Amino acid sequence: MGEFDLIERFFKRPARQADVGIGDDCAIWTPQPGHQLAISADMLVEGRHFLSTVDPVRLGHKSLAVNLSDLAACGATPRVFLLSLALPRADENWLAGFSTGLFQLADAHGCELIGGDTTQGPLNIAITVMGEVPCAQAVLRSGARAGDDLYVSGYLGDARLALEAFRGHISLPQSVFDAARLRMEMPEPRLALGQSLRGVATAMADISDGLLGDLGHILKASKVGAEIDLTATADLMAVSADWKCPADLASHCVLSGGDDYELVFTAPAEARGLVLAAAAHAHTRVTRIGQITPAPGLVLHDAHGQPVQHHHRSFDHFA
Amino acid sequence: MGEFDLIERFFKRPARQADVGIGDDCAIWTPQPGHQLAISADMLVEGRHFLSTVDPVRLGHKSLAVNLSDLAACGATPRVFLLSLALPRADENWLAGFSTGLFQLADAHGCELIGGDTTQGPLNIAITVMGEVPCAQAVLRSGARAGDDLYVSGYLGDARLALEAFRGHISLPQSVFDAARLRMEMPEPRLALGQSLRGVATAMADISDGLLGDLGHILKASKVGAEIDLTATADLMAVSADWKCPADLASHCVLSGGDDYELVFTAPAEARGLVLAAAAHAHTRVTRIGQITPAPGLVLHDAHGQPVQHHHRSFDHFA
Repeated sequence: MGEFDLIERFFKRPARQADVGIGDDCAIWTPQPGHQLAISADMLVEGRHFLSTVDPVRLGHKSLAVNLSDLAACGATPRVFLLSLALPRADENWLAGFSTGLFQLADAHGCELIGGDTTQGPLNIAITVMGEVPCAQAVLRSGARAGDDLYVSGYLGDARLALEAFRGHISLPQSVFDAARLRMEMPEPRLALGQSLRGVATAMADISDGLLGDLGHILKASKVGAEIDLTATADLMAVSADWKCPADLASHCVLSGGDDYELVFTAPAEARGLVLAAAAHAHTRVTRIGQITPAPGLVLHDAHGQPVQHHHRSFDHFA
Repeated sequence: MGEFDLIERFFKRPARQADVGIGDDCAIWTPQPGHQLAISADMLVEGRHFLSTVDPVRLGHKSLAVNLSDLAACGATPRVFLLSLALPRADENWLAGFSTGLFQLADAHGCELIGGDTTQGPLNIAITVMGEVPCAQAVLRSGARAGDDLYVSGYLGDARLALEAFRGHISLPQSVFDAARLRMEMPEPRLALGQSLRGVATAMADISDGLLGDLGHILKASKVGAEIDLTATADLMAVSADWKCPADLASHCVLSGGDDYELVFTAPAEARGLVLAAAAHAHTRVTRIGQITPAPGLVLHDAHGQPVQHHHRSFDHFA
């Protein structure tokens, strides 16, 4: 199977959104008038972002999901994406699985593959995704204001819990491991919630490097600080419903685990009703975990309102 | 040096075109009304697309150049790009050189880096580039018509000549090797020519996999054939001016060498004056090498007008 056969068999589909899709020097696409483009790129490397043993269907899903999560964090609607793929060899089973997982998620969000590249090399998946947002309505990291409530979507920490088990650091009941692994391998980008929060959230980011690290980006960009109530974050893991995670491990996974692809966002206290309405509309739970402070820095409070020392570090590929 | 320091030091510059540049979940950018977007992605892998010993300044140039060449082939004007980079380590000298070469070319064409990703992994450079073209004016591969003239821009075959020397298959005088190597490592995307040919060229493609292979894409998309006059292609190498290349080697390098990043295009015979005017306007030489035929297939003619057998193969990463 050659390069062009590979593209033809696994990746080329009739263009719907694009004026010209795969097969010319460029894709040609016409964005809607009155909108801005939101554009993001993520690269996934074997052994770094995923295990070599991962089910290729799940890998196809996750590769696009982590990109869509960035669109969600801006409140954008996905439109088109490009896939550049370095493969050690043209493995038909792998390609069939990967493309299936990729297109299932793409189709669920109306996001069309319009181009990319395929080459031989160490396994590397580089996606660029483009979405639209009505002019001046993108939610940025820089809009948080002192007094705003602080929220997270969905569940945090399960992906890190699964990773700890994969690494052999902990042992989990099979059902707990399976559930945590599903969260690690099949994250759901919170697109509906992100879009519903346009005009409501003052600042938003997606959680890929850990809650505290990604919240830190909001605080830095907005020149504010935050207080987090640890009683509100204690049960944020999805597996908490059926299994009692040791408190230290839960705290580590939830606060700085990473690979969550949930949203952390801020909104004025008077918008609590609007936040709940957005969450209901998006069928996505949100949890209020603290508030924004005028003084910079991040303070964690325990159940008694006492500040707790923390030494959490955000993930850094070169640290 | 951590991941964020690396981005800050080598890649982050004030946003000019973008509404929001590097540093949020997405870049936000507003294309011009009345234009379509032309979008392309190319991935470069060490050992496959470049030698590990290449000067990082030249590599930065080439990484963007091969992407801009796809925009040139559609007649688009470059606007913004995203860079995803997997690096074995954060090598400051390498990053300083790479970013210098990258930005020199980007600045020359007003193309702004608005986002991307940085991760640890085997060296891999994935760029997505976006340009604009006035609505319905993109030059596609599918517009060639029987009777059209067939042209190439600039020089062909030098990159392949340099590669043959690097591989030790041939020995070249130092000055010839240096000139050929410069063509291999510092290709100049033909953006001015591509834009000047809007409304003149009926079909266009960039030459990355070799003239015959990339012309083949035009012929297939346009459902036509072509005749090439080999006397017109004999001296297309830039080094031909100063050095007599053996005819067989020259033919191989020019017709199927690849890595040229020139344009192959077609235009009606009555537009010859317009083609020459476009070439003069773009300060880029063009050579008429044949014509489009109604019958499919590609026929090469020698100096006596006799058909010549050819067994040239286009480059295929998985063949």
